Amino acid sequence: MKDRILAHMGSLLGGVVHNLNTPLMWVMGRAQLIQSRTERVESYRELSDEDLATFREKNTKDISSILEGAEKIDAILKGLGYKIQMVNEGYTSVELREYLEMETNFLLADMRFKHDTKREIQLNSRSRYAKVDYNALSCAVTGIINAIMDHTDKGRTIRVSLENGIIHLGCPEMKLDDASRREVDDACGALREHADICADDTDGLQVTIALKDL
Amino acid sequence: MKDRILAHMGSLLGGVVHNLNTPLMWVMGRAQLIQSRTERVESYRELSDEDLATFREKNTKDISSILEGAEKIDAILKGLGYKIQMVNEGYTSVELREYLEMETNFLLADMRFKHDTKREIQLNSRSRYAKVDYNALSCAVTGIINAIMDHTDKGRTIRVSLENGIIHLGCPEMKLDDASRREVDDACGALREHADICADDTDGLQVTIALKDL
Repeated sequence: MKDRILAHMGSLLGGVVHNLNTPLMWVMGRAQLIQSRTERVESYRELSDEDLATFREKNTKDISSILEGAEKIDAILKGLGYKIQMVNEGYTSVELREYLEMETNFLLADMRFKHDTKREIQLNSRSRYAKVDYNALSCAVTGIINAIMDHTDKGRTIRVSLENGIIHLGCPEMKLDDASRREVDDACGALREHADICADDTDGLQVTIALKDL
Repeated sequence: MKDRILAHMGSLLGGVVHNLNTPLMWVMGRAQLIQSRTERVESYRELSDEDLATFREKNTKDISSILEGAEKIDAILKGLGYKIQMVNEGYTSVELREYLEMETNFLLADMRFKHDTKREIQLNSRSRYAKVDYNALSCAVTGIINAIMDHTDKGRTIRVSLENGIIHLGCPEMKLDDASRREVDDACGALREHADICADDTDGLQVTIALKDL
């Protein structure tokens, strides 16, 4: 199961690298702009107050871009780090809100999730720990979301919410057929001993995961 | 086999994140230093030539650090990107020198490989393509190196070289026992139809991989 999640993470790595690359390009580009301004520093003595203010404004803006880019990279690395730690150390107590936030953030590395999917994510509920094997939970949640992504078209909506410790995953555009039902069942396999899981598609797919040990 | 490599990559991700974090901290720290200098720009008019030169020098140094950090991040992402592309697209033609370079770079994400292992890597040979399934090759090479790491202590030496299209992997400190031999054999499984593989431990472990279709 751990290998399965690692493979899932591996399969999203291409997206992770892509998402890291974009802010990295800002960092590099902006640093070069600041450098070209720094080289002209001797001429600043001749600048008017106004020009000096413009200089300061431009430099500050570029530095903000660098910091923003670096923070974006940092946020992605933090999400990745969270997942790696949870997978490798096989946590058995999971803070559900944080977990769902990190998981849905990580999924942004899947370009289909980022660009072709409307996301309605409601995690306003208060902090709630569940005694559950992280890998079993993650296998189920990412497996269900993957099944939705694979069996629906661009423009789909994915709903993720947490209410009183119950996780809801849904997609109004999704109907279960034999193949997708098997995929969902298969993903939930190891979680069934920790949770009551119900998949209904009378009005689009709605999966509820009620963890037993909250 | 693809899943196995993805799981291997996943297992090294913690190290990748760590290796990305360090240069990212430089970027953030140096950008803040430049910002604090930028804020004092109005006072530059009163600076002597010497002080201005010092200012320029400091800023330039910090910008170099930012660019250096960004390039380090870029290099790690490139290595990762290479591996992901090769794994996902299942390449069947591999440039051996580039492959070994990328593979050993990627292994630096394993902290034991980075800190506790002496590396003797000789890839001076000229460019050489082999017709071989990337995943089978990567499974074998990383599997052998992992077996060495698992069955030897800190301070081990790992030798990787390429001569006339033959890959040599070696570790003078390693003796094969039943468990490690099985690990090496298992890793090489899928490669055997593409290569003659010989593992000898009379003078430390020496594995040669002679690809059939160069």
